[in-house]
Amino acid sequence: MVFQDLIIKKRDGRELDLGEIEYLVQGISDHSIPDYQVSAWAMAVFFQGMNRREIRDLSLAMARSGDMIDLSSIPGIKVDKHSTGGVGDKTTLVVVPLVAAAGIPVAKMSGRGLGHTGGTIDKFEAIPGFQVEKAGPAFIDQVKRIKAAVIAQSGNLVPADKRLYALRDVTGTVESIPLIASSIMSKKIASGAQAILLDVKVGQGAFMKDLDRARELARTMVEIGQGVGREVAAVISDMSQPLGCTVGNTLEVKEAIDTLRGHGPGDLEELCVYLAARMLRLGRRFEELAEAERWVREALKNGQGLTKLMEMVEAQGGEIDLGDENYGLPRAQIQHLCLASRSGFICELNAMQVGLTAMHLGAGRECLDDRIDHRVGVELCKKVGQPVKEGETLAIIHAQNRELIPEAIAHLQQAFHFSEEEPQAPALILDCIE
Amino acid sequence: MVFQDLIIKKRDGRELDLGEIEYLVQGISDHSIPDYQVSAWAMAVFFQGMNRREIRDLSLAMARSGDMIDLSSIPGIKVDKHSTGGVGDKTTLVVVPLVAAAGIPVAKMSGRGLGHTGGTIDKFEAIPGFQVEKAGPAFIDQVKRIKAAVIAQSGNLVPADKRLYALRDVTGTVESIPLIASSIMSKKIASGAQAILLDVKVGQGAFMKDLDRARELARTMVEIGQGVGREVAAVISDMSQPLGCTVGNTLEVKEAIDTLRGHGPGDLEELCVYLAARMLRLGRRFEELAEAERWVREALKNGQGLTKLMEMVEAQGGEIDLGDENYGLPRAQIQHLCLASRSGFICELNAMQVGLTAMHLGAGRECLDDRIDHRVGVELCKKVGQPVKEGETLAIIHAQNRELIPEAIAHLQQAFHFSEEEPQAPALILDCIE
Repeated sequence: MVFQDLIIKKRDGRELDLGEIEYLVQGISDHSIPDYQVSAWAMAVFFQGMNRREIRDLSLAMARSGDMIDLSSIPGIKVDKHSTGGVGDKTTLVVVPLVAAAGIPVAKMSGRGLGHTGGTIDKFEAIPGFQVEKAGPAFIDQVKRIKAAVIAQSGNLVPADKRLYALRDVTGTVESIPLIASSIMSKKIASGAQAILLDVKVGQGAFMKDLDRARELARTMVEIGQGVGREVAAVISDMSQPLGCTVGNTLEVKEAIDTLRGHGPGDLEELCVYLAARMLRLGRRFEELAEAERWVREALKNGQGLTKLMEMVEAQGGEIDLGDENYGLPRAQIQHLCLASRSGFICELNAMQVGLTAMHLGAGRECLDDRIDHRVGVELCKKVGQPVKEGETLAIIHAQNRELIPEAIAHLQQAFHFSEEEPQAPALILDCIE
Repeated sequence: MVFQDLIIKKRDGRELDLGEIEYLVQGISDHSIPDYQVSAWAMAVFFQGMNRREIRDLSLAMARSGDMIDLSSIPGIKVDKHSTGGVGDKTTLVVVPLVAAAGIPVAKMSGRGLGHTGGTIDKFEAIPGFQVEKAGPAFIDQVKRIKAAVIAQSGNLVPADKRLYALRDVTGTVESIPLIASSIMSKKIASGAQAILLDVKVGQGAFMKDLDRARELARTMVEIGQGVGREVAAVISDMSQPLGCTVGNTLEVKEAIDTLRGHGPGDLEELCVYLAARMLRLGRRFEELAEAERWVREALKNGQGLTKLMEMVEAQGGEIDLGDENYGLPRAQIQHLCLASRSGFICELNAMQVGLTAMHLGAGRECLDDRIDHRVGVELCKKVGQPVKEGETLAIIHAQNRELIPEAIAHLQQAFHFSEEEPQAPALILDCIE
């Protein structure tokens, strides 16, 4: 087989068979196909797409390019969760404990943040002492014992995707639904859970900017999962404004704990309840979604979710002090208020702008090897639909470096848009595909 | 400027401005843009195309990436010629002396053959002693003195195209008209002639398989040339069967001399007369094409073209003995007849198959650094439209290695197709765009 012929085949809109896709993935993994051919192929896929079978074969071949995690020794239906990435998305910290508290095991591997989006692993690492690296047997053992563990992706999880994604990232071939879907699903397949809940974000702060594309991505991923014998559902949720009121790792941990104590922001609680209930249904804990939601709401009230989070934190060496106002988490040295320069209603709060502001303050990474500061970030005091008076606080900037504040204020001022009339707050949960 | 943004711009169908194209060509030349980005960009161009202005800017920027030959010290309108490549195309050996004999200077740089197609430089090198390497001043001096010189392309002619073409060749991005046109025209622009005649080949043995695509390529190249102030015309000629009756370097030289003596094969003579006449009109030697053709036919009769070829050969150190039956050219050791296995009319003679047969005999290159044997090749005794009796000679294989003959016969048998009824011979000159 000559890889160039496969590029031409795809370029001309023809289908690659299983053997050809396996050859491609093998060549990406062992570097026998050079970068310039992989990127030309990816661009051909951008234009010509892939059919259902090709996408499924690609996902499975990529999953098999590295470690395949075996969770079979853990009793019960293991349910995984994945978000396509957004700003202020701390749902994993809330949802995993809730689901585990109901008896459904969650053995989750997560990634780090890049660009304007945060990463779950960074958030857990904002808890003092929390260990995100755990060898396979200890990881499985923790899930057996307390039903929940969240660790960093192992170095050899889907190496083919690691190379392919790095190339796509610099060759204008990220925005291809077959490639996005197979990248995500290969990791979920390799991670071993039988059931997977996907949270596909849509809006300015997400990779998918419009609902049609988000639906197409969701449907593609659900089909991949089903094609390889996994149960998959995909929620589509709004990411036009940040989720909850905090962006920045420590701030988000605190907000997640608040939510598990029953007094988190409305949008965050709403989405967490919905996601947890969907996962409980995927795990066959409840037949009916409404029943699952009732259970979850109750767990927020009676503290079962919080107790489970505390067990997870303890099992992974972290420390949270529920008696302390800030839960024993370190605070940034500077809190600077960003004030409204006019009165009106907030009609838009640009998630991308807020995400980039937090990144520039040091909460996120521009490059994969940038160091981050867990304490810094942005606390939003107003969100879309709320009235504001001139001089009121729009947001609080948490910073370590005073010099970064003027730029952060300028960015935040651009993120908030005002209207005279009261706007409708955007719908949070837009669809669910299963 | 970030090159990735330019890939995305082209991918999304937007136009690159002059600065962006110059940045691209600079980055290709100095290797500051990595291979994987260049190939992704080329694939985006394959799908999205380029507009007239972009193609012109790309051609000119590529031309300027290396040496720009200055022919201004040669008096008169310098006319160049380029063929897009075919099988048995020895027109340059006939046309350049004819044009020069009429007083129009031709300072031509040519390339070597690759794959099934031959190269003019290989053909000249089949003349014992002929030197194709000549320093710039000596090259110009020869043209001043005898009006004609054909040398190998200098090492630093359009280095950007050298890298881009090598990448396109292995990434399925050869078949893009903007990229083919700018590759050819950048070299013609850098070569310095004011007027250029292009011979765009169409058919099984050519890069362009159908007339519409050939017309589009021709029109694109004419527009590029006109856009940078050169006078350009593009002939479209048939390459469904080989041109003339020989394929292989020495055999083709002999056939070219025969043609200059007035007894070449009809199709070769017809095309040479047409090309030479067009060049004479581009060089303002004649106003009317018919007048130019008359002059050329006369030059074939009175030997002016042959005399000019002999001057060129002498000026470049070669030796041809017109008194010898084979003009003093070395012959292959083996002549093996390929006989007709049935009677009928030849309705097709696949140029690609014949070209590959000659290549496998050693006349051409599979890879750029393969060595070739000038003596070997194929002599065609029958062409499309001719009647054949079973057992008659279809072709003569000229070989040095007896072991290669069975495969050559098998290939040639596949190249000839028969019909019961007399077919129409294909039209040779299909169009001319100017």
